[in-house]
Formats: sequence, C-alpha cells, structure tokens
Amino acid sequence: MILIKDEEEMRGFFITFEGIEGAGKSTQSKMLYEYLIKNGKNAVLTREPGGTDLGKKIREILLNPSKEIFPPVAELMLYEADRNIHVHNIIKPYLNRGFYVISDRFTDSTLAYQGYARGIDIELVERLNDIASEGIKPDITFIIDIPVEEGMKRIHRYREKDRIEQEGVDFHKRLREGFLRIAQKERERVVLLDGRKDKEIIFNEILEILRKRDII
Amino acid sequence: MILIKDEEEMRGFFITFEGIEGAGKSTQSKMLYEYLIKNGKNAVLTREPGGTDLGKKIREILLNPSKEIFPPVAELMLYEADRNIHVHNIIKPYLNRGFYVISDRFTDSTLAYQGYARGIDIELVERLNDIASEGIKPDITFIIDIPVEEGMKRIHRYREKDRIEQEGVDFHKRLREGFLRIAQKERERVVLLDGRKDKEIIFNEILEILRKRDII
Repeated sequence: MILIKDEEEMRGFFITFEGIEGAGKSTQSKMLYEYLIKNGKNAVLTREPGGTDLGKKIREILLNPSKEIFPPVAELMLYEADRNIHVHNIIKPYLNRGFYVISDRFTDSTLAYQGYARGIDIELVERLNDIASEGIKPDITFIIDIPVEEGMKRIHRYREKDRIEQEGVDFHKRLREGFLRIAQKERERVVLLDGRKDKEIIFNEILEILRKRDII
Repeated sequence: MILIKDEEEMRGFFITFEGIEGAGKSTQSKMLYEYLIKNGKNAVLTREPGGTDLGKKIREILLNPSKEIFPPVAELMLYEADRNIHVHNIIKPYLNRGFYVISDRFTDSTLAYQGYARGIDIELVERLNDIASEGIKPDITFIIDIPVEEGMKRIHRYREKDRIEQEGVDFHKRLREGFLRIAQKERERVVLLDGRKDKEIIFNEILEILRKRDII
C-alpha cells in the first residue's frame, strides 16, 4: 500500500462566493458550475451551511426561528461544526480528486456575520474558522457587494425571511462593512465585485479573472 | 433603572454529575433533585446534551448514527453549542434566582470524551469549554467511577446503544481514564465516588459531602 500525503493529492481548485443576502452569490456560483461542466471540467457546487446531510440538520436549527435564547457563541459553534463536516465529506475529498469545488459561502461569511455583524471577538472567530476548516483555504474568493437596501429588496421579492434575514438593517450594514473589510485585508485571495451590474457582466468579469490567474 | 451585575445576582449552587455510561449519574442526580425538592428547596434537574429544546435537536444529530463522516472537531463544536445554549437558557437564569442547578454532565464530559477518549488536543477542548460556558463553573462535581465492563453491562441491559455507546471498549477505557485524571487534577472541585457501591450508600456519601461543604 502506498500512502500519499494530503498535500500531494490536493490538485483541484477551491472557489468561494461571499456577500450579503441577495447579492447574487448563488446565481454566480451556479453559473460558474454550469460553465465548467459544459466545458468538460470536473466540478462540484456546494454551500454553507447545509452542504451535507448532517449539515442540513444543523442548518435547520440555525435558520428556524426559536423561542429560546440563541446566543451568538452557540450560533458560531454550529456554523463551525457544519463547516468541519463539509470539509471532511465534500471539500477535501473532491479537491483531492482534482475537482473544482465551488462553495456558496465559507469562512468569510462567519467572519462577517458572527464577527463584524454579531460582534463576537474577531480573533476568536478566526481561530474557530481555522480549527473547523483544518487547513483548507480558498484559492480565490469572490465577494459580491451590493447596498443593503438593494439586497433586501431582492430577497423579499420571492420568499419569506429566515431567522438571519429577519435581522434589522443595521445588522446588514455591519455585515456589508465586514465583507468590505475582509476584501481590503485579503487583496491576494479576495476579488470584490459590484453586484449592481448585470449578472452576465459580473459573470464575464469572474471568468476573466479566473483565466488571468490560470485557474480555468 | 438599577443594573445588577451578574456576579451579584448569582447565589444558587451549581452541582454536576460526571462519569462513563452506566456509572449511575442520572440516578444520583435525580435522587439529589428529589431530595432537595422534598426538603423545600428550589432546584432544577437538567442535563447535557439536550437540556433545552434547541439542545434536543443538537443531541439528535450527535447521537443518531450517520452515514457521513462525523469528524471529532464537529462533534466537539456541537457539544459546545449545546452547552452555550444550556448556560443561557437554564443554568445562568436559575442560578441567578437562587436555585440548585443539578446537571447530568457538563464540561468534564467534553474533556473526557472529546479530549482524552477521542484524542482532540486537551488545551483546545479546555479553551472551547471556557468559551461555551461563559464563566460558569460548577461549585462541586461528582465523578462516579465504575469499571468499563460493569458500565457497559448495565446500559445494554435495558436499551439499544446510541452512536457514542457503540464505540469500542478501548474508547471507554480512555474515557474512564480521562475522568480519573480530571478528578486528580481538580481536587478542590471534584469528588470521586465508587459507583460499584449500592446507590443508597453513594447517595448518602453525596449528602454528607454537600453538608460538610455548606452547600445543603
């Protein structure tokens, strides 16, 4: 039996999409996934929370309104548990098989939501992000930015709000601010996109950047 | 409006029971709870995981066998989420109202199961225990010790095994060893009891210790 180290096996690309609700993350991740498949690439489209069966159960707990106090630290721990399960069951195995792994949300969402918006100590969130992701970092992250009012208008158009979406405008403003700070701090990994543009234009910008960086 | 600090309000006693499966924790915590109620005290009996409604949902995820990989770190995070919800909804509010809060399992179980038995770094488990319990520490902890074979015999007598109980004998031996180490390290807080004795004898020992320490 030959044992191959994790590092050596890892040859796929890990691409994440981040942003506030209604920014267009899910749309863009799906467009990219379909583009890659159409071009004969191995790709998998996944998301957080709820990218696995166990994660779906955690997601339900996180998004259903509750009569009990739901403290921020507990919320953080649940997101990290979901992430750790996601990393072991989907992200790592597919990266090891050379796939493009596209995730709708990853560690930056936790930093923006639980850290910047909810007010949990940033270093603590970063530490737990590191623990839960076990060394897995995105090769590239697209943060799609739109004004809070625009994002909220978009999501309310077509469905009911979940527990997080029910948060007020101030919460979502801190959230957007959080994503912008992450983009500023991590210029190598993170690409900031203007979500107000037409989705086809945004998608072309994404493809161009991925080509320039030799990812596709 | 007068603001009272948490510290000043806190005047109940927090008593925890710990040990391997089948040691008799649940029996002894129930006996103590009933004794206190019968003697006109305010007391609440609770447990981890699953002491709250949200916690019950987490407990289900933790104990149901799963086809997916269930990594140790995710397990740890879920236990800590359950704890943080438990602290905010039950333990703190009742302690603040002067109740005896009796919990069947608390932080020592996480240290023994996820740390000593499962092999997660002890310092990491301790750190997460601290974060999740937000400064709440038991006034006294009873670790009930029995040999692994004896404990397993007892639980298999009357019900099916859950995901944790399905672990092998080696896991449960590391677990017992873990509890014994905690008892050695924390001699002030932790009282070690011999679970092979008759339950009435153990209960009398518990009452005697609680009286000696001016807890009852």
